[in-house]
Amino acid sequence: MSVLLASTIGPPDRWISILENALPNETLRTDVDAEDLSDVEVALFAHRVPGLIPRLPELKLVIGLQAGVDSLIADPELPSDIPIVRASEPGGDRMIAEYVLLHVLRHHRNMPFFLENQRQRVWEKPDVPEARDCRVGLMGMGLIAVPCALVLQNIGFQVASWTRTPNSMDGIENFHGADSLEPFLARSNILINVLPMTEATEDILCSRTFAMLPEGACLINIGRGHHVVDEDLIAALDSGQLKAATLDVFRQEPLPIEHPFWAHPKITLMPHTARKIQPENIVPQIADNVRRFWSGEKLVLLVDRSAGY
Amino acid sequence: MSVLLASTIGPPDRWISILENALPNETLRTDVDAEDLSDVEVALFAHRVPGLIPRLPELKLVIGLQAGVDSLIADPELPSDIPIVRASEPGGDRMIAEYVLLHVLRHHRNMPFFLENQRQRVWEKPDVPEARDCRVGLMGMGLIAVPCALVLQNIGFQVASWTRTPNSMDGIENFHGADSLEPFLARSNILINVLPMTEATEDILCSRTFAMLPEGACLINIGRGHHVVDEDLIAALDSGQLKAATLDVFRQEPLPIEHPFWAHPKITLMPHTARKIQPENIVPQIADNVRRFWSGEKLVLLVDRSAGY
Repeated sequence: MSVLLASTIGPPDRWISILENALPNETLRTDVDAEDLSDVEVALFAHRVPGLIPRLPELKLVIGLQAGVDSLIADPELPSDIPIVRASEPGGDRMIAEYVLLHVLRHHRNMPFFLENQRQRVWEKPDVPEARDCRVGLMGMGLIAVPCALVLQNIGFQVASWTRTPNSMDGIENFHGADSLEPFLARSNILINVLPMTEATEDILCSRTFAMLPEGACLINIGRGHHVVDEDLIAALDSGQLKAATLDVFRQEPLPIEHPFWAHPKITLMPHTARKIQPENIVPQIADNVRRFWSGEKLVLLVDRSAGY
Repeated sequence: MSVLLASTIGPPDRWISILENALPNETLRTDVDAEDLSDVEVALFAHRVPGLIPRLPELKLVIGLQAGVDSLIADPELPSDIPIVRASEPGGDRMIAEYVLLHVLRHHRNMPFFLENQRQRVWEKPDVPEARDCRVGLMGMGLIAVPCALVLQNIGFQVASWTRTPNSMDGIENFHGADSLEPFLARSNILINVLPMTEATEDILCSRTFAMLPEGACLINIGRGHHVVDEDLIAALDSGQLKAATLDVFRQEPLPIEHPFWAHPKITLMPHTARKIQPENIVPQIADNVRRFWSGEKLVLLVDRSAGY
């Protein structure tokens, strides 16, 4: 029986050598175009490979390499009884936490203002805010968000989370459910979207929710491009309701060259670079799930397909 | 007997009300131009006030409000037997730590590259480095540096310090003395200058020391402008020996409008804004030193005038 590496993030070579080391008793295949794939029982996907799943008659487990598994869940070719698990590193991804901290600090310390002043040779020293006076809101509290919450809290920011179901984490105020979205947004000076992409969260960042934020709030989107209504974001920035936005994800990637986000003075545009998954960080947990699968143990990070993540 | 608030950072009003609260038994004066200042025994200075000290015949203690006391030490009017103490908040200044973390992360995650790509509408995703592979070097380990070292270490950077005399701090490799400057610099991908300004440290960031850094290192200067030989810095950036620099301090402030730093593409220019000292954060320690002074106890943060800090 074989494990198929169907798609990767970055070049497959490193994934192959690290997976082979971690799974010494499995046959690792990467030949997705082969005629006969009937021995494949486990398949690893960074993203969907159209037409592949119908060619895997013995498929019993799908492992997603990214934190977001929306493209795998949405795959009409994937039978609903095949479990999907995600992959993560112990303690969460520090790279994402660094990235979020960088962009929160950039907004908190008003970097776009200083860069523009440098361009104009203006020496101006506004008051310097303190982290303890800045309220950061995390929409979502999954794999990606937890290490972010920890580092932000450690620096001294007031951190709160908004989640579908109640979520308790020391020192992090939690708002949950649709009714609490408004008070959560109303207290958030810097809003970070780390929601999974589901029917319920699509288009959630729109005129209606931007209006719930305090005037002059900042947005950091590392969820998905489809969480944001692009024209509503531009309107909120232009009106001053939002002070600035940092976007890492877009409805279409690479972002089309004619898209107005590129040249918007209040948008920092990052090419989906918050995280670069390193195989050595997540393969141990993948190998553990493969072992659990063969021995019939409970799988870790099993996706709830009805919830959408 | 009186305490004189001779100069402040920012408007004096907040200093006055907070000092009056913290020193209920003292007469707080701010009238530096008064004819008779003969009752002043303690004077607080954010920076030197030329001509004032000779008019304070009973002066017995100088308290500096900034971390750097070089302008007070250098004051030829200040008798050498009058002690100078500094002021600090418990645990160090978090504002500086935030600022250093922001600028280290900016260089670590290559923000100038991404901002330039956005300007040119280029979608390019280079490899994302990990903090654990990045070596940060702190030149100096005083009041300002300690909280910076802690937050950088917490994020996962490899942090080392270079100091005049041996300095031990958990998990921070220490290099000390002139002979160890070269190995310290050779291991530092991101160099942060937080040295005090003394005869020994003036011009320390020059062609000779830039050449000791690994090629492509980044510099963050929050010490003093006189630590840097400006033309040497520009040459090191232009040759590629240094990848980028963030400067918060300059030989002349505000930086003259014709200075080449303003428009240099590899320099991020900040208007001495790493820290904005908040009176409520440091006045408790000032009040404690005043109390110690009157009761003859040992002063805290006493400046060693021969060492220069």
